[in-house]
Formats: sequence, structure tokens, C-alpha cells
Amino acid sequence: MIQVVTEGEVDLPREAVVEVVGRSRADGRAPGGVEVQATGITVLARPAVRLPFDISKPVLHASLETVLDHRALSLRHPRVAAVFRIAAALAGGFREHLTAEGCTEIHTSKLVATATEGGAGLFSVEYPGRPAYLAQSPQLYKQICVGAFERVFEVGAVYRNEPHETARHLNEYTSLDVEVGFIDLDGLLDLETGLLRAMLQAVQARAAGARETLEITLPSFDSIPRIRLSEAKDRKDRLAAHGLTYKPEEDLDPAGERLLGRVFAEAGHDFVFVTHYPVPARPFYALPDPAEPAVTLSFDLLFRGLEVTTGGMRIHDYTQLRENMARFHLNPDSFTGYLEAFACGMPPHGGFAIGLERLTAQLVGATNIRWATLFPRDLHRLEP
Amino acid sequence: MIQVVTEGEVDLPREAVVEVVGRSRADGRAPGGVEVQATGITVLARPAVRLPFDISKPVLHASLETVLDHRALSLRHPRVAAVFRIAAALAGGFREHLTAEGCTEIHTSKLVATATEGGAGLFSVEYPGRPAYLAQSPQLYKQICVGAFERVFEVGAVYRNEPHETARHLNEYTSLDVEVGFIDLDGLLDLETGLLRAMLQAVQARAAGARETLEITLPSFDSIPRIRLSEAKDRKDRLAAHGLTYKPEEDLDPAGERLLGRVFAEAGHDFVFVTHYPVPARPFYALPDPAEPAVTLSFDLLFRGLEVTTGGMRIHDYTQLRENMARFHLNPDSFTGYLEAFACGMPPHGGFAIGLERLTAQLVGATNIRWATLFPRDLHRLEP
Repeated sequence: MIQVVTEGEVDLPREAVVEVVGRSRADGRAPGGVEVQATGITVLARPAVRLPFDISKPVLHASLETVLDHRALSLRHPRVAAVFRIAAALAGGFREHLTAEGCTEIHTSKLVATATEGGAGLFSVEYPGRPAYLAQSPQLYKQICVGAFERVFEVGAVYRNEPHETARHLNEYTSLDVEVGFIDLDGLLDLETGLLRAMLQAVQARAAGARETLEITLPSFDSIPRIRLSEAKDRKDRLAAHGLTYKPEEDLDPAGERLLGRVFAEAGHDFVFVTHYPVPARPFYALPDPAEPAVTLSFDLLFRGLEVTTGGMRIHDYTQLRENMARFHLNPDSFTGYLEAFACGMPPHGGFAIGLERLTAQLVGATNIRWATLFPRDLHRLEP
Repeated sequence: MIQVVTEGEVDLPREAVVEVVGRSRADGRAPGGVEVQATGITVLARPAVRLPFDISKPVLHASLETVLDHRALSLRHPRVAAVFRIAAALAGGFREHLTAEGCTEIHTSKLVATATEGGAGLFSVEYPGRPAYLAQSPQLYKQICVGAFERVFEVGAVYRNEPHETARHLNEYTSLDVEVGFIDLDGLLDLETGLLRAMLQAVQARAAGARETLEITLPSFDSIPRIRLSEAKDRKDRLAAHGLTYKPEEDLDPAGERLLGRVFAEAGHDFVFVTHYPVPARPFYALPDPAEPAVTLSFDLLFRGLEVTTGGMRIHDYTQLRENMARFHLNPDSFTGYLEAFACGMPPHGGFAIGLERLTAQLVGATNIRWATLFPRDLHRLEP
């Protein structure tokens, strides 16, 4: 943003692209403190249509639908673009922190022959000679890679063919995946705590302008509280007052998450780890707690009342894994390449996945995840 | 790798996972110069099967087919894993250099409603209510984003449904994409030259061990020679001696690329930019050279005789772009969201895409791109 002064009139519509030759001078009244006295202006491109809406105001007055329908224009609004500058800083901080922690970046295939976690929610792809699907997660691949690299991460697209029509679900999103060997549940929570701190520092360091544009405050914390799901449910007085009850085998539903987030926010915590989800609430590879086999050594991270991470320890023993697959009615023959890693010996390991768009949306206070997705895909939207 | 000495015998098969407690002491004869005198060994996991091949030798004696069939085991061989440590360093160097150059990272959708560059080579996806495809490239999206962020990059999967059965093609690969505004062809080549230097420095800094394991020498250069395609073809004496001739409208075919690479390698150049490809050899968005409209302001980068980058300047004028789409028999109605960026005014811009697996394979001297792909996808392989 720079202020340019010309002699005489220049015919310049909004969004015209120009090359300016001139002399700059300090001027405290100009944006950025600099003004350019133009001696020549060349128009490099001129809009060919009347702009569908005005992007010159500090706040964009357009519905989410309009913003997404006209992505090429809406992205040029500083407040719209700022969200993605923050997302870029978060992803950069994620990778650089994990690289410094000795993790190797991997790129695994998104075209798979088998569902990662059971058959539901898959997109079919027409592949020569056989059925293929879009991967719901790099879960099985990142586990295989732990056997070779010990600590890995991946940033990539994942796919959910689900009929959800909510403000927090998409058919395609960016998953920030981590998987590390020789770790335990507390170690995983420590790892994510340090990682989040590094990601927020990256936002402060590289997207300070975007943060100011959006007028947001970054969370700051030394540690993140950890609470067992059963304890969370035991806060019955608090929960019941809001008309909420849980059965022991249940997952935390969205309303419960929001409430729990509120309870912790009132105590000054933006983040809370909820741990030890029951076995039926987690996938087949989740490691049951040896001390209490009805629950798994798993966790979700809630950020201001929204789940932004799911993770936990995984079963690393071959026999136990095969038995658990049977319990989940999965056919081991569909998982040959995955099971081989365990048959060849695997270290204890665990990991987690952060939804980049959810984390970004929550950080900027967006009411819908689509505000934090460049080109969202859902039941109704495949373009642009 | 560490040498452990025990008292008495321990039953430890290869690939067993162990926890060792003991005392370390310097020993020049041990790998890494350290030996551990064990006081306790706990077996955390034991292979459940006889390993399908031996990974304890310095060189893995197994065919590519076997290596890929048994990915979970083959990846544990130091020479196999080293290739991916180098790929990770290349990708990290790519992002960090471009971030320092003021580029914003983007994540664009891989589920698209229209072919990027015409109808061939697309994978169909069963999407609710309408046809959808896997993106061949983020080309149109990264151009849209230049209108908002001016300089962008993306690291992501791209898809080619092609019947190729070659050592250099895959149905899915990782594309390192760049697109920047207010640049010209020479600026693009300068940008990629500095970028490649930074990526190779990242390999040296972060994957020095992998480089040593593979015994490879990293290319080093101050600049990269630039040659017009027509000049390349004019080296007729050299080319004809190898039985090769070109018609002016032709692209460089693989044999021609290898030969050109050899010609430059003999002159001490690992890399060469070949520029100004004819209009019919490039996509609809390639910018024709105003000084010679039969050729485009485009380039390929050859690395030791293999194309590892395609790029160039793009048409930024709305009318010219529409006219060129008509020339390429494309229906503008299928490109509404893309064309809007140009209708709203776009700066002159250009970009390029580097195939991560190809660059890695060429750097490590792999004879087949599959050696540089964690989980390759082709006509015959969808697992693991």
C-alpha cells in the first residue's frame, strides 16, 4: 500500500495494475510514511468488467457465498488474504519446528486401494483395472515410515466423502500429520505443546501485518491443561447446568466440546487436551491403556471449544494389532503392506494430526471453516 | 547406528526393537566412535515373520519390484531411506528460500470440475451430483492467487491418468509450484537458479549423512546456461551425429533431452535452461513472445539430460487469454473462476513447477523415478 501523487488527472479504475516511476519522500500522513511523486504511470492491465463488489472498504460487506463464488476478487481484500498469510505461517512453523526436532518430511500417496479406518466416507476414483479411493488420512503410511525414519511429518490434502453440512466440515482439507517412535502419551502432548508454541511464534514473526489487519490476539501459554475424558464428564454440575449429560462410552460431541472449551476459557486456557477416549470411540490402531483397557492412550486437542487435533499412541505389537483388526471387523488381507511393518518389528510410537483450516479459522475467529480455505470443497461447491 | 557389547548371549533377531541401558565409552574402532557396555536390554518388539530379504548389507540386493512390494522393510535400508532424506531437504530448501523471497504458501484444491490444460489424462472422481476430477496441476489456482498475494508457492500432489509405462512417469507425483507477479522470463530463470542453489545447500546442510551414504556429488554452479530451443536444434552437427533431427514445431523429445544434457555435461554444466518453445508445444496460458509470436516466453530446465522443470510467462491480458482459449478449442464457460482473475486485472506474471521425485532421482543417480517415490502409483501399482 503506497500513496502516489500525480500531476493532472489519471484514468485508473480500481484493480488496474500500474507501473509507477517517481520520487519517494517521507510523509507522516501517508500510509507507511512514504509518498511517491509520480513522473510516469504505465497501465499494465485494466479490469475488463465492472467489479462484482467493492473491495476498497476496510471490511468486506459480502456473504460467504458471494466471497467464495468470486474467489479471484475476494482474495484481494486485505482481511480475506490475511487469513491465508496466517495459515502459511502456521504451516511453515509446523515444518520448521519438526525438522529441528529430527523429523523427516514425507509425501505419501493419496490414491489408495483400501479405506484407512473402515469403509465409510471414501471418494471413489476411476483407476485402470481396479477400484481406488482418495485417502482419508496418511495414517497407515506415516506409521510405516516411522519404522524407517523414526520421526516423520507430512503436510497434505485428505478427503472425507461425508454428507455433513456444517460450518466446521469440508470434503477436502489440509492435514498436518506427525508420527514419532519411542514416545509415550505425555511425550506426545509435550511435543504438540512445543509445536503449537513454535507455530504461533511463526505467525508473530512472519504474519504480524496479517495479525494486525485482523486485530487478533495470539494465545500464549507455558503449558496446556490435560484432562481425562471421564473427568471432563465428571464435571457434571457444570455440564448439567447447560443441559448436557454423557454416557461413559460416548465421544465428546460438538456441543460438549464447545462447553468444555468455555469452562477452560473462563479459567484462562485457550487450549485443553482431553485424553483417554474409550476404545469404541477410536480407530483400530489406537493403543488401549494397559492399566485400563477400556480406554485408549489417545487425545483430542480443543482450541476455544473446537477439536483441532486428534492423536494418540498406536498399537505396535503385530499380534495385538491383528487381534484388534478382527475386533473392528477389518480384513487383514486389505492391509498387507501396513501389517508388514509390524511383522518386521516396530517401535512403540504415536502421533497426531492438526487440521490446518480448523486451527486457522479458530485463531482468526472465523465462524465458518470456509473463511480459512482457499478453494473449499463441499456437497455444493467444486468451483472455482 | 551404535555398537553395543553385552555379557553373555542375547537372542536378538534382525529388526528387533530394543531398549538398552548401559554405559557409553569412546572407542575409535566402533561406528560413530562410541561403544555401549550394556547392563540391561529390554526387547520392545520382535519380528513376527522371517524377513523377506536381508537389509543388513551395505547395498540392497533386491529388484525394484521387490523393494516396492515390501516397502515397509525396504525403506529401512540406509541407502533406500537416504533418497527420501534428500527429497525432504530439497522440499524444505524450496519452501524456505521462497518464503524469504516474499512468497506466500498456498494449499489449493486437488478436486476440480475442469481439466487444467485440456481434457486428456484426467482421473474421474465420484462426487455427489456432478463429475469431478483430480487436478493435473495447481496452475490455474496459483495464477488466481498471484492476483491476491503477488508471489506464491505450493507443494502438493498432482495427478496424470496417462498410459505411460516409463522409468520417468508416475500417475501421482509431488509438484513444487511457484508463481510470481511483476517478473519477466529472465527474472524467472534467475529466480529458479537461486532457488536450486538454496535447495542444494539445504541438502548439504541437513542431509549430509544421506549424501555420504549414497556417495553422490552435489552439482555446483554460479549460473545456468540458457539456450533457445531453436539454437539447441541448430546444433545440428552434434545432434545429427547421433541420428537426431528436429522439425521446428517440435518439442524436445526424451532422446533429444538426454543428448542435449550430454552436450552440456561435457562442457561442465549439470543444468541447462531451454527457452522459447513453439506455441503449439505449450498450454493455452503460455505467453507468446511479442517479438516473435510463433514462440512462447517459456522454458524447461534439463538436469543431466532430464526435464525437471517446466515454466514460463503467462498471458495476463483478459482479451488475449480468451482469444487464446478459443485457439486451443477450450470453452471459456468451463473457466469462469479463473477468467474472473483476469477480468478484474492481473499483473504480468510467470512461474514454474519442479517435479520433486524427478529432481531427487536425477540427483541421486536413480535409473527409475520409483526409487525416489515413497509409495509410487502407476498402471500396475496401487499398494502398499
